[in-house]
Amino acid sequence: MSPLDPKRTVQELKDLRALTGDENGAWRVAWTDTWLKAREFMREKTDALGLEAHMDAAGNVWSTLPGESPVELLIGGHIDSVPGGGWLDGCLNVLAGLEVVRRIKAEYGGRPPVTVRLVDWADEEGARFGRSLLGSSAAGGTLVPDEERHRKDADGVLLVDALKRCGVDLDTMNDAHAELRNAGAYLELHIEQGPVLLDLDLPLGVVLGTFGVERHGIHFRGQAAHSGSTPMNRRRDAFLAAGKMGQEIYAITDELGGVCTIGSCVTRPGIVTSVVAECDITLDQRHLDRVALTRMYERAVEASRRFAAEGGVEVAWSKIWGIDPMPFHPELIELADEAVREASGASHRLPSGPLHDAAEVARAGIPTVMLFVQSLHGISHNKIEDTQEEHIEQSVVALDRLASKTIAWLRR
Amino acid sequence: MSPLDPKRTVQELKDLRALTGDENGAWRVAWTDTWLKAREFMREKTDALGLEAHMDAAGNVWSTLPGESPVELLIGGHIDSVPGGGWLDGCLNVLAGLEVVRRIKAEYGGRPPVTVRLVDWADEEGARFGRSLLGSSAAGGTLVPDEERHRKDADGVLLVDALKRCGVDLDTMNDAHAELRNAGAYLELHIEQGPVLLDLDLPLGVVLGTFGVERHGIHFRGQAAHSGSTPMNRRRDAFLAAGKMGQEIYAITDELGGVCTIGSCVTRPGIVTSVVAECDITLDQRHLDRVALTRMYERAVEASRRFAAEGGVEVAWSKIWGIDPMPFHPELIELADEAVREASGASHRLPSGPLHDAAEVARAGIPTVMLFVQSLHGISHNKIEDTQEEHIEQSVVALDRLASKTIAWLRR
Repeated sequence: MSPLDPKRTVQELKDLRALTGDENGAWRVAWTDTWLKAREFMREKTDALGLEAHMDAAGNVWSTLPGESPVELLIGGHIDSVPGGGWLDGCLNVLAGLEVVRRIKAEYGGRPPVTVRLVDWADEEGARFGRSLLGSSAAGGTLVPDEERHRKDADGVLLVDALKRCGVDLDTMNDAHAELRNAGAYLELHIEQGPVLLDLDLPLGVVLGTFGVERHGIHFRGQAAHSGSTPMNRRRDAFLAAGKMGQEIYAITDELGGVCTIGSCVTRPGIVTSVVAECDITLDQRHLDRVALTRMYERAVEASRRFAAEGGVEVAWSKIWGIDPMPFHPELIELADEAVREASGASHRLPSGPLHDAAEVARAGIPTVMLFVQSLHGISHNKIEDTQEEHIEQSVVALDRLASKTIAWLRR
Repeated sequence: MSPLDPKRTVQELKDLRALTGDENGAWRVAWTDTWLKAREFMREKTDALGLEAHMDAAGNVWSTLPGESPVELLIGGHIDSVPGGGWLDGCLNVLAGLEVVRRIKAEYGGRPPVTVRLVDWADEEGARFGRSLLGSSAAGGTLVPDEERHRKDADGVLLVDALKRCGVDLDTMNDAHAELRNAGAYLELHIEQGPVLLDLDLPLGVVLGTFGVERHGIHFRGQAAHSGSTPMNRRRDAFLAAGKMGQEIYAITDELGGVCTIGSCVTRPGIVTSVVAECDITLDQRHLDRVALTRMYERAVEASRRFAAEGGVEVAWSKIWGIDPMPFHPELIELADEAVREASGASHRLPSGPLHDAAEVARAGIPTVMLFVQSLHGISHNKIEDTQEEHIEQSVVALDRLASKTIAWLRR
């Protein structure tokens, strides 16, 4: 006779959608009024449950159920969304976590063996200012305020001013790190945002960690030449070399795993009657293993040089961005695997391509694991994002089982 | 003791450059004051030689030396240039032709066996209104006035108004066709605008004809997908298919000859974190042989469909423009070959990638041939366009020899 009520989570998700979305999707963009409204919706629920709630220096909201031990089990998510986003991305974690805290409070007569805290991270999406994981990186300790100071939204509003309006001072955001002082473990449930579980016809999966990313621009420089008067063997065709990279990235992932994407190709002069003189492509490479990620990058550089040499063009690389892989905690992965099997009969382990707040917590040295629930269409950041209600309910059960196992693990 | 003076041609080219160019190149853009000034420069010279000169209904200027027979030998070129163009493109033909007419007039005491006419075609470049071969297509009979009526220059000036200012009425341009009534043969000398003769270290070559052109847009449509969460085997990557075309065009020309160019590639959404959903490339294919050109096009269509199927994307083709190949006259090609050997010791036969007025004359059924003189850097439409003066002089000699041989051929 468990007091856990996964159907209530589905209903609360629908209530939140009605409150903060419309026919074009969810509008809980961080630091906006709709986001504040969503937080007010949450605050009413944590107050009703009798949790101590406060916002930290980075804008993250912590709701605490004190336990026998100061050691803390953290369950986290983010209530912010992209503009016109889906009804589950981020808030599923917060509302499922709330339901788990309700169950724990009921089970232990108000005082569980460890302290349990629900955290709503501020601005996971970075949708307005282009900086994702803002609140969790401040808590985790990787935020450098000076690198964010210049950020403006599309209307020219400064990030610092938008934060101030919500009671957050960029320069003291890192004080939020203190919130992790007693953290013993961190759990996060999220929709997959990809097609892997859908393809396997599984409701739930265990996340092994978040991919590291190597993101670069590749510039091929050949020579413009008349399309009619230039023999093929005299050409220095920048598009020929760039096009070969299109296939090469599939050969690289065949060998090394991970994912590679060429997302943009720009040609100059870019006219029908000239051989392409300059071609710029972007390359995004991701892998869970640091050594493999480095090897992926090296293979791409090597291939680009070979293609450049074959076509008599030059190639230059410039780094856009990068982050190290963040593998999750091996023991928590085993516990998550058990919890998923108990909730749905079968499990699958997969890496996460997108980044999550969990990566910032793990980077801070806190044992961390995530659960994924299947995404229909394999799509998110879009109003058509969806998950079967039965799967949502199973995901709440799995998170709850994982919480119980993790409490036991923290007391080991 | 030939009265032909090739050094005079070089001097006159320099005079024209001083009159109508500056440090940024030549500015004899058709229908502008500088172009009219260049034509005035020519008119003084043809008047001095005692030729009958008039402008036809299409703006082409004809300068006639009447002969014993009404059958005409035509020598043509265009004095217009692109903006910031080179000192030889187009006007070399006109001034070399003038020198040849001078020699013929002197040799035959003013009355050669056939009528000899020099034509300065109007607006070969199409630089201002985007319609090349304007005057020669009107004379040749392929101009459709209604298809040109909408044209405007960058300042919004209508083509019809620019023509009117120079005494040309778009609706009656095709009356210029009458000028070809007695044409027996057409000769044109031009700089190569490509690197073939330079690579062979030959001053002169014989042009076999102008390439036919198939010009198409190719649209690949896949699906946008997150660069981190989408496994490689689930992608429908429009850039992968487009990139394969980059190599395929070289395989096509290896097999069939001719030239193929992908000049532009545009990706959508075109961001670093998404698989490319839509990719548009342009394909320009050229060949001297009609059957081979059709086969080139078919092979490209076939390959694009294969690449689309391999990657789970769709492909659609749309025609941008096309023109049939225009092979030159086989007997005149033989005569041109002799003339080139006499002038420079060795010859080479090559197709022309760029179009020329000669193609419009040949299309009208007039026996036609062209000579090419080597281009330094293989470059034109640029102020750095250049040819060694010794080669320019040899080209005038070759054109003169070819004129003599063609007069004899016309009297056969």
